[in-house]
Amino acid sequence: MADSTPLSEALTYLASRREEHVEEVRDFLTIPSISALSAHKSDVARAAQWLKDRLVKAGFVDARVDATPGNPIVRASSGHRAGLPTILVYGHYDVQPVDPLESWAHPPFSPTVENNILYARGSSDDKGQVFMQLIAAEAWQKTGQLPVNLKFIFEGEEEIGSVHLEQYVLDHQEDLKADLAVISDTPMYQDGYPAVCYGLRGLTSLEIAVQGPYQDLHSGVYGGAVQNPAHALARLIASLHHADGRVAVEGFYDEVDPLAPEERKAFAALPFDEEAYRSELRVPALHGEPGYTVLERIWARPTLEVNGLWSGFLGEGQKTIVPASAHAKITCRLVPHQNPNHVLDAIESHLRSHLPPGVTLAVTRGEGAPGSITPIDHPAVKAAEEAIERIYHSPASYIRMGGSIPVVVGFQEILHMPTLLLGFALPNENFHAPNEHFHLENFYRGAETVAVLWEKLGAGHV
Amino acid sequence: MADSTPLSEALTYLASRREEHVEEVRDFLTIPSISALSAHKSDVARAAQWLKDRLVKAGFVDARVDATPGNPIVRASSGHRAGLPTILVYGHYDVQPVDPLESWAHPPFSPTVENNILYARGSSDDKGQVFMQLIAAEAWQKTGQLPVNLKFIFEGEEEIGSVHLEQYVLDHQEDLKADLAVISDTPMYQDGYPAVCYGLRGLTSLEIAVQGPYQDLHSGVYGGAVQNPAHALARLIASLHHADGRVAVEGFYDEVDPLAPEERKAFAALPFDEEAYRSELRVPALHGEPGYTVLERIWARPTLEVNGLWSGFLGEGQKTIVPASAHAKITCRLVPHQNPNHVLDAIESHLRSHLPPGVTLAVTRGEGAPGSITPIDHPAVKAAEEAIERIYHSPASYIRMGGSIPVVVGFQEILHMPTLLLGFALPNENFHAPNEHFHLENFYRGAETVAVLWEKLGAGHV
Repeated sequence: MADSTPLSEALTYLASRREEHVEEVRDFLTIPSISALSAHKSDVARAAQWLKDRLVKAGFVDARVDATPGNPIVRASSGHRAGLPTILVYGHYDVQPVDPLESWAHPPFSPTVENNILYARGSSDDKGQVFMQLIAAEAWQKTGQLPVNLKFIFEGEEEIGSVHLEQYVLDHQEDLKADLAVISDTPMYQDGYPAVCYGLRGLTSLEIAVQGPYQDLHSGVYGGAVQNPAHALARLIASLHHADGRVAVEGFYDEVDPLAPEERKAFAALPFDEEAYRSELRVPALHGEPGYTVLERIWARPTLEVNGLWSGFLGEGQKTIVPASAHAKITCRLVPHQNPNHVLDAIESHLRSHLPPGVTLAVTRGEGAPGSITPIDHPAVKAAEEAIERIYHSPASYIRMGGSIPVVVGFQEILHMPTLLLGFALPNENFHAPNEHFHLENFYRGAETVAVLWEKLGAGHV
Repeated sequence: MADSTPLSEALTYLASRREEHVEEVRDFLTIPSISALSAHKSDVARAAQWLKDRLVKAGFVDARVDATPGNPIVRASSGHRAGLPTILVYGHYDVQPVDPLESWAHPPFSPTVENNILYARGSSDDKGQVFMQLIAAEAWQKTGQLPVNLKFIFEGEEEIGSVHLEQYVLDHQEDLKADLAVISDTPMYQDGYPAVCYGLRGLTSLEIAVQGPYQDLHSGVYGGAVQNPAHALARLIASLHHADGRVAVEGFYDEVDPLAPEERKAFAALPFDEEAYRSELRVPALHGEPGYTVLERIWARPTLEVNGLWSGFLGEGQKTIVPASAHAKITCRLVPHQNPNHVLDAIESHLRSHLPPGVTLAVTRGEGAPGSITPIDHPAVKAAEEAIERIYHSPASYIRMGGSIPVVVGFQEILHMPTLLLGFALPNENFHAPNEHFHLENFYRGAETVAVLWEKLGAGHV
């Protein structure tokens, strides 16, 4: 026992209780906490209570279930010790619906282990990872003291849009304040590539309407004398991009953080089969901003996409009209540090200056959320990397994600802290689909990695 | 009676029977021959019988009602006299529905004369003008001999798309053969501007589909890596026109008959208030092919119009997707002598050579019909001009129409004869709307003009 350290004791705690932990998470997964179906409202509440009770058992004696106008939020805290960094761990205990039920090899709420894989709705998204976070903390609590101040917030409405979370965060800013948020609700890059996800794209939206004549006109009687709004809209949309894929809106890239050379190197180190990707999407060729790889394009470069387009007659056959108007829905994926309003300003200004003659333009601006990033040289990123390498015995990957996670934006905008996405699921573990599963190897190693991370962060890494 | 001529006797016949003719046309108009409503099927048949009986009374003893799979076709002929030109007069005895009934000042099938205007459904479109043709012929039959060989064909399905007319014409080509078709089913240019309409535009259509990924993609996960089909479609559509309004498709104008200087002069002589036209359509500016007036653009220049456009998400709110596909419906108005197939070839070739990368294109070609024209220096045009001037004591206008009339295409393509559109309605006499009416002055003068026309044509003008 000479070389026993607090960390090794925590890790031993986890290693010696694997069977027991699997039994416990299976119990948690038997509760059908489907937030989308009101018939399961009491199950969702039961899962919250289960989680609270288990947190108490793990040593979080202040654990509580907070009511909201929707499903409850489970909270717990290790208390405050001065000089230690404070970490907020977020997760969700609600799950997706299970239909089509007949596609499941095992009943979704009868958790089954086969070949070291745990099959159940919620196993990877996100109850399995929530429980993994819980036991990582418990290992420290039961063998000594957590090397960080830990706060938990687990919601029950993630799968229905986190309806009441933002208000809850606004109402509990002091309680939730921390130096860093950690979320285990995303996949690793792929099997064998445990990853730190340090960036997400933001989003902004607008809708445009090009108005021509007061009503659809007979194309025989009027065709040739008036601008066709569908043509004008097509010209406008075509003007938004250069032929090579770059966005042509003046100022669009002004606030874009360039990719750091280390990031490009990290992305390039990831295995990526462009031909397999192209073939899976069934497109004749990939297409995007020149000078960037596919991963750079989808993770770290902004986009401007038409999501919907309509004008005139959409039914069967022909209707010989000049349409009265034409419409488009547009969203932009933003990267740090693009300001959503500045981007909308630039687009609106572009649209107005490129409007063809003979029509008028109406622009309706939508909501925006910025992208988020924890700089790759942030101490927490380094700590996560070291923790992964210690447990997986292989280098950590640095990845970003092209989508947005509203709670991360909330933590950034309301609580002013960065978020580390440290997920241990695999991308093909059927989240939201039948036969959702979670590789137990990653359940064990994930808990161990998190346990190491707390030590690294406690040692001053944040 | 020294200066009595056959023509003056025919005109006197008409002038002395005006009241009687108004009474007769009112009787014809009491029959609710609405072809769109099956409840009126027997009324339609009754109108056909009424017309046949009246043709017999007018001296057309061979008049007959021919059954079709739909509504009957009424035919009559003056017999054949060698050396005389043969004229086929087309019209229709069916009418539009009358709703909203409460908007009519007089019941639609209780024909009422007020201020020398006859109010009734069908008064101008087209039963009034059919009866006008009938009495013009009768005037010659009863006072001497028709100076032309006259054939009548009156259908009962014009308002529902002339469903069975083309087959009937195909089946009766020998019977219907003539040197010229005359149709009184269009308006004059405006009050005081009796007109010969000598040209119509044709039509051709296609539908295009731009296909990208196999399904809508999450714009966060994939946005930036694939071509967006809505963007590609917008580029394609934008490429079809130059910014100034000209069609940019190579070869599109190759077969277009240039406007003759006399035609341009004739159009320019017509009153046309561009500002009133713009304001009525509520567009900020008119827009069309440079170098042409509005009337030239809508009557005598071809167009390429998007009639419908759709891609991705059309519902309320936002859906952050890269759409799987994007679609457009396109029609072209054609002018003589553009071949619809050549035009489709040119467009398809343009689309294929302008297709942006990363998507595939499917083109579905639709039906086409060529434009039609009777050359402005055709003897029949001259004859109509002289007839109008003789009766109206004012110069005849030369006009074309921007739409298509299928029966004219049929006469051109199947029977190989030109058509003269010699209508006496006014553009604002509410065809297809409540309170349809017909100015009796034009009913009288129209019959007289037609009576004169037969003499002119008989004298060798065709």
